[in-house]
Amino acid sequence: VAWGPALRGGLPAVCFVWQLSMIILFGVFVRYNEESDTHWVDYRKENNITSDIENDYYFRYPSFQDVHVMIFVGFGFLMTFLKRYSFGAVGFNFLVAAFGIQWALLMQGWFHSLDYTDGKIKIGIENLINADFCVAGCLIAYGAVLGKVSPVQLLVMTLFGVTLFAVEEYIILNVLHAKDAGGSMVIHTFGAYYGLSISWVLYRPNLDKSKHLNGSVYHSDVFAMIGTLFLWMFWPSFNSAIADHGDGQHRAAINTYLALASTVLTTVAMSSLFEKTGKLDMVHIQNSTLAGGVAVGTAAEFMLSPYGSLIVGFFCGIISTLGYIYFSPFLEEKLKIQDTCGIHNLHAMPGVIGGIVGAISAAAATNTVYGDLGLENTFDFTGPFAKRVPTIQGGYQAAGLCVALCFGIGGGIFVGLVLKLPIWGDPADENCFDDEIYWEVRQNVSKSNICHFLNASQIWPK
Amino acid sequence: VAWGPALRGGLPAVCFVWQLSMIILFGVFVRYNEESDTHWVDYRKENNITSDIENDYYFRYPSFQDVHVMIFVGFGFLMTFLKRYSFGAVGFNFLVAAFGIQWALLMQGWFHSLDYTDGKIKIGIENLINADFCVAGCLIAYGAVLGKVSPVQLLVMTLFGVTLFAVEEYIILNVLHAKDAGGSMVIHTFGAYYGLSISWVLYRPNLDKSKHLNGSVYHSDVFAMIGTLFLWMFWPSFNSAIADHGDGQHRAAINTYLALASTVLTTVAMSSLFEKTGKLDMVHIQNSTLAGGVAVGTAAEFMLSPYGSLIVGFFCGIISTLGYIYFSPFLEEKLKIQDTCGIHNLHAMPGVIGGIVGAISAAAATNTVYGDLGLENTFDFTGPFAKRVPTIQGGYQAAGLCVALCFGIGGGIFVGLVLKLPIWGDPADENCFDDEIYWEVRQNVSKSNICHFLNASQIWPK
Amino acid sequence: VAWGPALRGGLPAVCFVWQLSMIILFGVFVRYNEESDTHWVDYRKENNITSDIENDYYFRYPSFQDVHVMIFVGFGFLMTFLKRYSFGAVGFNFLVAAFGIQWALLMQGWFHSLDYTDGKIKIGIENLINADFCVAGCLIAYGAVLGKVSPVQLLVMTLFGVTLFAVEEYIILNVLHAKDAGGSMVIHTFGAYYGLSISWVLYRPNLDKSKHLNGSVYHSDVFAMIGTLFLWMFWPSFNSAIADHGDGQHRAAINTYLALASTVLTTVAMSSLFEKTGKLDMVHIQNSTLAGGVAVGTAAEFMLSPYGSLIVGFFCGIISTLGYIYFSPFLEEKLKIQDTCGIHNLHAMPGVIGGIVGAISAAAATNTVYGDLGLENTFDFTGPFAKRVPTIQGGYQAAGLCVALCFGIGGGIFVGLVLKLPIWGDPADENCFDDEIYWEVRQNVSKSNICHFLNASQIWPK
Repeated sequence: VAWGPALRGGLPAVCFVWQLSMIILFGVFVRYNEESDTHWVDYRKENNITSDIENDYYFRYPSFQDVHVMIFVGFGFLMTFLKRYSFGAVGFNFLVAAFGIQWALLMQGWFHSLDYTDGKIKIGIENLINADFCVAGCLIAYGAVLGKVSPVQLLVMTLFGVTLFAVEEYIILNVLHAKDAGGSMVIHTFGAYYGLSISWVLYRPNLDKSKHLNGSVYHSDVFAMIGTLFLWMFWPSFNSAIADHGDGQHRAAINTYLALASTVLTTVAMSSLFEKTGKLDMVHIQNSTLAGGVAVGTAAEFMLSPYGSLIVGFFCGIISTLGYIYFSPFLEEKLKIQDTCGIHNLHAMPGVIGGIVGAISAAAATNTVYGDLGLENTFDFTGPFAKRVPTIQGGYQAAGLCVALCFGIGGGIFVGLVLKLPIWGDPADENCFDDEIYWEVRQNVSKSNICHFLNASQIWPK
Repeated sequence: VAWGPALRGGLPAVCFVWQLSMIILFGVFVRYNEESDTHWVDYRKENNITSDIENDYYFRYPSFQDVHVMIFVGFGFLMTFLKRYSFGAVGFNFLVAAFGIQWALLMQGWFHSLDYTDGKIKIGIENLINADFCVAGCLIAYGAVLGKVSPVQLLVMTLFGVTLFAVEEYIILNVLHAKDAGGSMVIHTFGAYYGLSISWVLYRPNLDKSKHLNGSVYHSDVFAMIGTLFLWMFWPSFNSAIADHGDGQHRAAINTYLALASTVLTTVAMSSLFEKTGKLDMVHIQNSTLAGGVAVGTAAEFMLSPYGSLIVGFFCGIISTLGYIYFSPFLEEKLKIQDTCGIHNLHAMPGVIGGIVGAISAAAATNTVYGDLGLENTFDFTGPFAKRVPTIQGGYQAAGLCVALCFGIGGGIFVGLVLKLPIWGDPADENCFDDEIYWEVRQNVSKSNICHFLNASQIWPK
Repeated sequence: VAWGPALRGGLPAVCFVWQLSMIILFGVFVRYNEESDTHWVDYRKENNITSDIENDYYFRYPSFQDVHVMIFVGFGFLMTFLKRYSFGAVGFNFLVAAFGIQWALLMQGWFHSLDYTDGKIKIGIENLINADFCVAGCLIAYGAVLGKVSPVQLLVMTLFGVTLFAVEEYIILNVLHAKDAGGSMVIHTFGAYYGLSISWVLYRPNLDKSKHLNGSVYHSDVFAMIGTLFLWMFWPSFNSAIADHGDGQHRAAINTYLALASTVLTTVAMSSLFEKTGKLDMVHIQNSTLAGGVAVGTAAEFMLSPYGSLIVGFFCGIISTLGYIYFSPFLEEKLKIQDTCGIHNLHAMPGVIGGIVGAISAAAATNTVYGDLGLENTFDFTGPFAKRVPTIQGGYQAAGLCVALCFGIGGGIFVGLVLKLPIWGDPADENCFDDEIYWEVRQNVSKSNICHFLNASQIWPK
C-alpha cells in the first residue's frame, strides 16, 4: 500500500529527531539533584542527615517501581483486549511512554525542579515518578483512540499532551495550591477529556467497516486481566508515591486499598444486574473495578477515613459500570465520540468525582480531626499560603478541577485538529483495530495443514 | 436457563448488601492508627522517633505489595490452567479477595487491633498485610472447588472462612502464643482443610459429565505459570511480611528463598521419574514447586539455618509431587474429595509439615544459637509468657497445628452443609469448569470463515 | 523413543544428587550473617546502629525482589516467543535458576563472604542478589541454545557457568578492582560469549528440519512481551541493587531509567526503517529495547550524567536492531553460530559497549565532578587501592572487559565440548524447538469436532 513508504519517512524520522532533541536538551538542562549526586556525602553532613536511609530514594523507590509497572504493564496489557491489536496495544504504549517520560522530565523540570543558581533541572527519584504520572495522562488518552491512529499520531499526542499537562499541573498545584497526590484532576480528568476531545475531532463515521475486529476473544480477555490486576494492585502505590513522608504515604495507601476493594463488589453487582441473563461482562471487570482508585486520588492523603474511602469506591463501581452500559453507546451515537476503551467511564467520570471529593473533604477539614500541625502539613499551609483555611482550600480544589477540564477539552480539540492533517499515516476505516497494518504478523498456516493444526491446537476435546 | 434469574436475584443483592454492611461497620469501628494519622507528627515527638523512615510503613510496604500481587495475580492466574475457566479463575478470585480483605480488617481488627480507650479498630500497613493473609486461606479453599461452585457460594465460603480464620488465628497466636510468621498452620493448613472439607460435602458423583473441560490447553498452562512464578518469587516477602523488624524479616526471606529453590529440583526429579516416558508434567511444575514456601512458613523467622531450609524444601517437593501422582486419585476415588487444583498436595500436606517443622525447631531452640536477647525477641518470651522455655513453646506450636486442623475440618463441614442448600445457583454437573455459565463469552466465528480464520491463526506452519 | 529412558536415568538423578550436594555443602559452609542472625540486637549495639531500618535488608530488599522477577519472569517469559517451546522456555529457566542460585551462593560465598574466623560463608540479602546476578549470566547463555538442548545439558551449563562466573567476578572486582554495578562485563559480556561459544561448538548443520517451529505465533509474541516489559521496568533495580547506599543506588536507577527510554525510540526507528514495508518487527521490540540497560550497567553508578545515559541508550538501540537484521544471519551462515534468541545483539555487543563506556567514564572522572570524597566513595579508592587515580582505573576497567571475554569464550568452548558428549539426551534436529519431547502436552481435539471447535474458538468473526 501507499502507506508503507509514508510511515518509513515518518516514524523513523520522528523517533530519531525527537530522541536527538532530548539528548541535546538534557545535555543543556538536566543534572542530578543533591541526593543522587556524588556530593551527597557533603550534603548529608551539612543537613544533619544521619543515615543514607534518609535519602528520598528509600522513601519512594518501591512506589516508583510499582508506578512504573502500572505505566508499562498495567496500561499496556489493559489495552490488549482487542482480538488483533495486542501488538499495537502493548507496543505503542511502550513507545509513547518511553518518549513521554523524557519530555516530561524536561517540561515538569522547568516548572518544578529548576535550580535558579545555575539554570539546571536537578532530578531525583521524585522526578522519575512525576514523569511516569505525566505519561499516564497521555496513555489514558491513548485508550480513547486505540486502534484508530498511527504511532506517529500517538507521539504527537504525547508531545502536546505532556506539554499541556506540565502547564495545567503547575497552575493547579503551584498557582492554585490545590492538592492532588493521586492525580484525580491533574492526571485522570485531564487525560480522559484530552483523549475524548481528540477522538471527537477524529470521528470516523464509517468505523463499522472494521467492526469485526473491535472486540475481544477469550485469550485476549485473559491478557487484559494482567493489565487490570497490576493497575488495581499497585494503585495504592500510585496514590501514595509522592504523598508526604510518613503518615501521608501510609494513609494514601490505606485509602486507596479500601476504595478499590469496594469498587470490585459494586462493579460485579451492576454487571450481573444489567445483563439479561445475569452473566458478568469482562469489559466491566477489566475496567470499572479500577474506578475507585481514580476517584480517591485527590483525597487519598486527606483524613478521608476508611469508611469514606469505601463509600467513594462503592459509588464509582456503580457509575463506571452504568457508563459502559448506557453512556458509551450514547457518547458514540449522539456525541460522535468513539471511545475504544471506555476511558470516559474509567477515568473521566471517576476523575471528576475525585476532584469533587477532594474539594469537599478539604473544605471539611478541621483542626480537631487533623491536629494543628497535621492540618498545616497535609495542606502545606506554609509560606505564602500560611493564612489559607480549609474552606478556602476547598474552593481552590474545585478551581483546580475546572482547570484540568479546560486544559483537557481545549487541548484535545487543538491537538485533534493537528492530528486531522492528512500527513500522519493513520489507518483506513477498514484497517482499524488491525495489527497487520503496522506490524509484521507471521502468517504461516497452509490450508492443507488443517488436520495437523487441529490436532495440535488442543482447544476442544472430543 | 432457569439459572440466570436466580443469579440476578442473588449475586447483585449479595454484593450490594454486603458492601453496604462493610461501609456501616467501617464507619462505626475503623480508624487510622497513630502511624497513618495526621497526628503522627505529635506521636513521633512523644515516642522519640527521629525520622519518618521509622514509620512501620517503610518496614513493610514493599512486602505488602508483593503479598498483594500473590493474592490477586498469583492465586488468580495459578487457577487459569483450565481450558475454559480462566475468567472464573481470575475474576472470582478477584471478587472474593476484594470482599474478604474488608471483612478480614474487621474480624482481625476486633481480635488484634481494638483500641480499648475508644472502642475503635486502628489500622495501618500491618493490618492490610494480615487482611491479605486471611484472604489467602479462603483462596486456597477456592482451589479445591474451582469450577464447581457459583460466585455467591464463593462469597459465602469467604464470609465464614474469614470469620473462622480470625478466631483460629487468635487462639493460635494469642492464646497459645504460637509463632507462625508465614502461616503454615494459620493460613495453609486451615485453608486447605477448610476447602477439602467443603469439597467433600459438595461431592458430585457425576462430575464426569464435564470431564472434557477439566484440563488444560497449551496457552492456559502458560497463563498459569504467571501465577506460579509470582507466587514463587514473592513468597520470601509473604513469609517475612509480618516478621520482626530487622533480623527477623531478613532471616525469613533467606530461609524461604532457599526452601523454594530446593523444592524446584526435587519436583522436577519426581515429575520426570514417575512419568512413563520421563517427560515433565506442567501440573507438578505449576504447583509442587511452591510446597517449600508453604512448609517453611512457620519456621521462617527461626534460626532454621540455610541448610535446614534446603532440607525442608527437598522433602516437600518430593511429597507434593507424589501427592499429585498417587494421593489425588485416591482422595477422589476413595474419600470422595474432588480437589480441582490439588490443594491437598500444595497446601495441606506442606502446611502440616510446616507446623511440625516449626514445633521441632522451636523446641530445639537454645540460648547458644539464638543469644539470650535473640531468643526472647524471636519467640516473644515477654509479659505473661516471660517464663516460657523453648521445649514448652514447641508443645504450644504443635497445639496450634491441631487447632488449625480442627477449625479447617470442622468449619469446612459446617460451611459445606450451608453451601449444599439449593439456593446458591451452582452449575449443573455438565456445566462445571465452563465460563459460559457465569460470563459473557463472545462467540463469533462463522463456519464459512474457516479459511480466513486458519489463515490468520498462524498456529501451525506448512 | 529411546530417549525417554535416557532422560529418566538422567534428569531425576542429576536433580537429586546435586540438590543433596547443595544441602551437605550448605550444612558445612553456610550460615546467616550478622544482619540476618538473632544476635543482630547485640551487633546493633556494638556498632551504634540506632534503628532496625539501617539493616541492609531495607536498603536492598525492594531491588532484590525486582531482580528476582527479572530472573524468573523476565528471562523466562522473554523466551516464550517460540510457538511450541513456551513450557521449555519458562520451565527450564525456572529449573536452571533454582539450581544456579544455590550453587552461586556457595561459589560467590567462598570468594566474597567467607568469614575467616570460623571458615563459614555468612549470607544476607546482598548475597541473594548476587546469586540472582550470577544466574543471569547462565540464563543469557540459555538464550543462545534455546530449544536445542536437554534440561540436563542446561544444568551442566549452569554448574560450569556459575563456577566460571565466580572466578571471573573475583578477578574483575577484587583483583583488578574494577567497578561493575550492573554487570555489563561480569554478567552480560561473560554470559553472552559463554552461550555463543557453546552454541558454536554444538552447531547443528541440519537444524532446518525443525525450521517450522523456530518462530513465533501471535499469542506467543504477546507472552514474550511480559518478559520484555518486566526486564525493562525493573532494570533500574538491577543496575542499582548492589550499588553504594544512598546516592549510588539513586544515581544508578536514574541512569538506567534514561538509557532504556532512549533505546526504545531508536529501536522502533531502526525496526521500521529496515523493513521493506515500514512495519515493526516484534523480535526487535522484544529484545533491542533492552540493550540500553545492558550497556549502562558498568557506568550506572558513575557520574555518567543524564544526557550521557541517553546517548548510550541511543546507540545501543541502533546497534542491537542492526544486529538482528544483519549480524544474526551472518553469525549463523558464516560463523556457524546458531543464536536462537539473538543474545549477541541483546547482551554481547551492548555488554562490550558497556565495558568500554565504563572504562572511558572512569578514566574521565575528576575531583571537580565527583568531589574528593565522592570520587573515593564511588571507586573505592581505599585500602590497598588508596593511591589509584581515575586514568589508571580506566585501564583496569578495560582489563576487566578482556577477562570477561576470555572467560566467556574459553569457558564456553570447554563446556561446549563437554556438552557434545552423546550422553545428555539432547533432541534430534527434527525435534528442536518442540515442547513435546520433554513435556506432557495434552492433545485432545478430535477431527469430528471441528465445527464445535471453531464455534468455540471465537478467533475470527463473520
